[in-house]
This record gives sequence, C-alpha cells and structure tokens, in this order.
Amino acid sequence: MSPSDPLASWNDGNTKRSILDFVESVSTAGSNDYVPINERIAVFDNDGTIWCEQPVPVQVFFMGDRIKALAPQHPEWQRTEPFKSILVGDLKTALATGIKGVAELGMATHAGMSTDEFNQTVHDWLATARHPKLNRLFTEVIYQPMLEVLTYLRSRGFATFIVSGGGAEFMRTFAESAYGIPPHQVIGSTVKTRFEFRRGKTLLMRDGQLDFFDDKAGKPVSINKYIGRRPIACFGNSDGDREMLMWTTVGRNDQRPSLGLIVHHTDGEREFVYDRQHILSGELDKVLSDAPGYGWILADMKRDWSVVFPTAARSAQGTA
Amino acid sequence: MSPSDPLASWNDGNTKRSILDFVESVSTAGSNDYVPINERIAVFDNDGTIWCEQPVPVQVFFMGDRIKALAPQHPEWQRTEPFKSILVGDLKTALATGIKGVAELGMATHAGMSTDEFNQTVHDWLATARHPKLNRLFTEVIYQPMLEVLTYLRSRGFATFIVSGGGAEFMRTFAESAYGIPPHQVIGSTVKTRFEFRRGKTLLMRDGQLDFFDDKAGKPVSINKYIGRRPIACFGNSDGDREMLMWTTVGRNDQRPSLGLIVHHTDGEREFVYDRQHILSGELDKVLSDAPGYGWILADMKRDWSVVFPTAARSAQGTA
Repeated sequence: MSPSDPLASWNDGNTKRSILDFVESVSTAGSNDYVPINERIAVFDNDGTIWCEQPVPVQVFFMGDRIKALAPQHPEWQRTEPFKSILVGDLKTALATGIKGVAELGMATHAGMSTDEFNQTVHDWLATARHPKLNRLFTEVIYQPMLEVLTYLRSRGFATFIVSGGGAEFMRTFAESAYGIPPHQVIGSTVKTRFEFRRGKTLLMRDGQLDFFDDKAGKPVSINKYIGRRPIACFGNSDGDREMLMWTTVGRNDQRPSLGLIVHHTDGEREFVYDRQHILSGELDKVLSDAPGYGWILADMKRDWSVVFPTAARSAQGTA
Repeated sequence: MSPSDPLASWNDGNTKRSILDFVESVSTAGSNDYVPINERIAVFDNDGTIWCEQPVPVQVFFMGDRIKALAPQHPEWQRTEPFKSILVGDLKTALATGIKGVAELGMATHAGMSTDEFNQTVHDWLATARHPKLNRLFTEVIYQPMLEVLTYLRSRGFATFIVSGGGAEFMRTFAESAYGIPPHQVIGSTVKTRFEFRRGKTLLMRDGQLDFFDDKAGKPVSINKYIGRRPIACFGNSDGDREMLMWTTVGRNDQRPSLGLIVHHTDGEREFVYDRQHILSGELDKVLSDAPGYGWILADMKRDWSVVFPTAARSAQGTA
C-alpha cells in the first residue's frame, strides 16, 4: 500500500483490484473502455453502503428521539403503537410492522413544519446523538473505505450521487460535510411540500404525505428522474438496490462498461454480520444469489477492509 | 465593451450593471455580500427565458409533428380534438383549451415507449425541425445574451439549473450541448415511468400519466426536491416563474443576497412582443406588477440586448 494509494483502507486482493481496474479503464483516454467525463455517473445507496444501518437505520433513531421529545404534547401516544413501544425504549416491538411502522413514525415526526425547521432539527440532533453500540456520533459511523471510493471516483471525473430509501432532506443535512456530496446529488424518499407566503416569509411546508418512496424498482425511476442518465457504477448492499444494480449493469442499449459492487456485512467484531435474514433494513438475499450471474462484486467487509470507520473519529471516541 | 466582457451581447446600462454587480459581489472573497461557492445556485426558466416560446413552445411543435407521424395508426384522430385540428395544421384551435389540450397531446405522443426510445425520437426531430417564423433550427432560437449569463455565472462558481414547465426528458436531449447544462441540472415536468426487465434488456417505460407539473407554485417545490437549497439567482419571463422568483428573493431566513431577473419580450422585429395578454405560454401579468416592489429587474429585450440569437447560427441561416 503506497502513500498515494487512493484506496488505502482496502486490503490488496480481487475486490480492490476490480475497482481500480474499472475506474482506470473508463477514465483513461485511449482505453477501449473509455467513457466521456459527462457520462461518468456513480450511484451509492446510503444505509449499509456508506454508513451503518444496524440495529436500525440512523433515521429511525432520529424518529425515536423526536417521539420522546414530542410526547408531552401527545398523551394519546402512551396508548398507541408504534409510539407506545418507542416511549418505553422497545424499538423492536415498535418496528414489528416493518416499513409501515416506520412510515407512521416518519409522518408523526417529520411533517407539519417548514423545510427550514426540519433541517435545523436534524442538524441539531446529529450534533450530539450517538450510535448506541459503536459509541460514536452517527456522522462518524461512516465507512472509511467507501469515503475513499467516493473521493477516488471524483478525482477521476465521476459525479457521485446517493440514491437511498432514506429521506432526501434528512440526508442532505450531513451528506456534504460527511461525504462531499452536495444536496442536489442526494436522491432519496420525499414527502409532499407546499409553497406558502406568510408574514413576509416564503416557506415550504412539509405535508404528512409521502411523495415518493425511493427503494427497489423506485431507484431506477428516481435515477432517471433526477440524474437523467444511466450510471456506469453502482454501489449497494441489499435487495433494495437490486433494480438500480440491474439498471446500471444489465442489458444497456449503449453497451457502456459498468461496475456493480455490494458491501457484504461479514464483520461482527468491528460492525455487524447480516445478509439473508429478514430485517428492517439491509436484507441481502436475492442480490446475493444474483451477484455471480451478473458479475456484481462482493466486498467482504472483514476480508477487504483494513479499517471500517474513520480513524480520526475513532481516536476521538477513545478520549470520550 | 471590452473583448473580455462576459456579457458582450448586453448593451451597457442598468440591467447589465445590475447583473455584473450582483455576481461580482457574491463571488468576491471579502465582499460584504460574499456567498460560499456551494450556495451559489442559479435557476433559469427555459421557454421564453433561454429560448423562444412563440408562437407556441418548441415542445408543442414537436407534439404536432409526432401527431402527424403517428396519425396513420390512429384513424380516430381525424374526428377527435385536439388531434383533428393539428392534422389540418390549425394549431390555434387545437390549443384553444390551453394546457389541457397540450397535456392530451403530450400523453398521446410521449407515452407508451421507453425513455431510450423517447430520447432518440426527440434527438432526431431536433436535428432537422425549424422554427416556422425565425427559420432556424429550434436549438438555434436560443438567446445569446442568456448563454453569456450562464457561462459567466459558471465562471464565478455558480451551479446553473433549468427549472421549467417543459418536459425534463425533452429538455435533457439538448440542454447539455446547447446550454452547457448537464441532465441532472435540468428540472422539468415529468411523467411516471416503470422499471422493466424484458428479453435481457432493462427499460424504463413511460406511462401515460403525469408525475409532476413543474410550474407556478410547483417550481419552489421542485427546486427544494431536486436542488435542496435555495437559489440566490432566478431568471424567468412569465407568471409561471412568480413563486420561484419569490422563493429566491423574498423573505429568506438566511438573509442571503439575491437576484431576480425577468426577460421582457419587447422586440417584435428580432423576436416577439408579448406580456399581459392571455397566451398559452409566457403570460407576464402579475410578475410585471410585482417586479418593482420586489426589486426584480426587467431585461428589456429591445433595449438591453445587442444580439438576440447566436451569430454563428445566424450566418448558417444566411447560407441555408
């Protein structure tokens, strides 16, 4: 590993080699696989691909804390699920209904305020909230090797986008400082908003209504809607990323070279181990079966990553 | 006008001065009005702001030609409005129902095909179709002074976006080559699409259903959804741009400096004269009344622009 290694936290091996070979071949003038700079688009899932999504996605921790903060104004929550379980700290029961329970939490905690107010609330929460097991700020449970992939791709002319089931406005509060990805390159689930002009202020009010759920077959739809071009590289970690992996790598009319990579969570010591089991976020079943046939690369966290989380944050944790 | 004048096609005067002063002040380190580079977002309406929208928007000419091309497969169109009038060349009657008639044309001509097929169809049409009065390719009825504003803003660190009621996928076929604006910075109206995997090909099929109509109060909504940040400069020409002008310049919580500019169509010799009359596209009534109070600048086409269309294209026209 040389000092100028763009993927310094990746152990030498086939996975690292495949990333380097792909990026060099598409970005080197004269190469058979050369792709013009404006077509170098890379898309990344967020939860479980760039940052930790266990035991539940970070946004669910946020919702839980919001429920607790808002509970005094909602005495009815003491008797109504999923709020009741959240308030006694039982996240597991609260989320037993899966995505439906999460959606109810989201609507209760994310709606009825302006976009400016919502952004401020998320911003303030992220400044202090910590991951319960990893004991770091949530903005520090991001994967150092994936940060290196992002930086490396951009250094070779790629535009990097997040395409996540998470809330777009939630992610935009930290994606620029944590990942170097500006708000307009963060694509996610959205709620409906409404323009208002009130007491001299222009506002966008967040309604309690889902606009778009950016998961599974919704991901190629939103890639087309927001980016308007097929990516040539796609990074995911779960069945929610299957269709965008296909959209990137399978049966393209333009015959462009492409890369599909899956982060496989195999490291129970440094992070979490999961794949095929039925879980709220991160189930990797179909994609694991499809990977060999479609040539998708499995990044084995335990084997391929010499470091999981950023070192600076780790030493900060040591002194906390 | 010096050779290095970034706005060479703008006549000297208050309008040009206002643009230069604003851009210099927000992009010069140490200035009181300095705005960090990642917040320098500029949004542009398209029809009537960057290219000609009279006698009808370019996309309506496209729809008309598609109707004619598809007519042999649709004998019923000979008896059904708005198709019947289109087929006898009477655009005026066809569009008498306003946006409703246009939407019907759009659904009939833009749906039921893949996004790849649609893009190819638009691309092929734009290669040869000409504006009936101006006798230029439609990609040449773009305003040279506005191209200079786009280039100038980008040279001072701005990200430039289109925010138009026109179809996003229609505009993306030419915005990069004509305006230097990549597909992911083109925001417009969208139809619903559906991911399909068919005979080894991945496709997005365009359904006959509107997803979002990007006009009026929809513009700040889509700016927030796609860009995730308030612009500091907004360029429009009609009442359809009123809410995005307000979102950019009125009652911001962050107190950023901002610029709102309106292209006023006053030149019947070189282009078209219109503002308050009721027309399909480009009605400028409320915004004209609001402009002085909100400090929006009126760019008077006849007075402020020394050139309207790009010169290279003009000489090409001369030899055509």
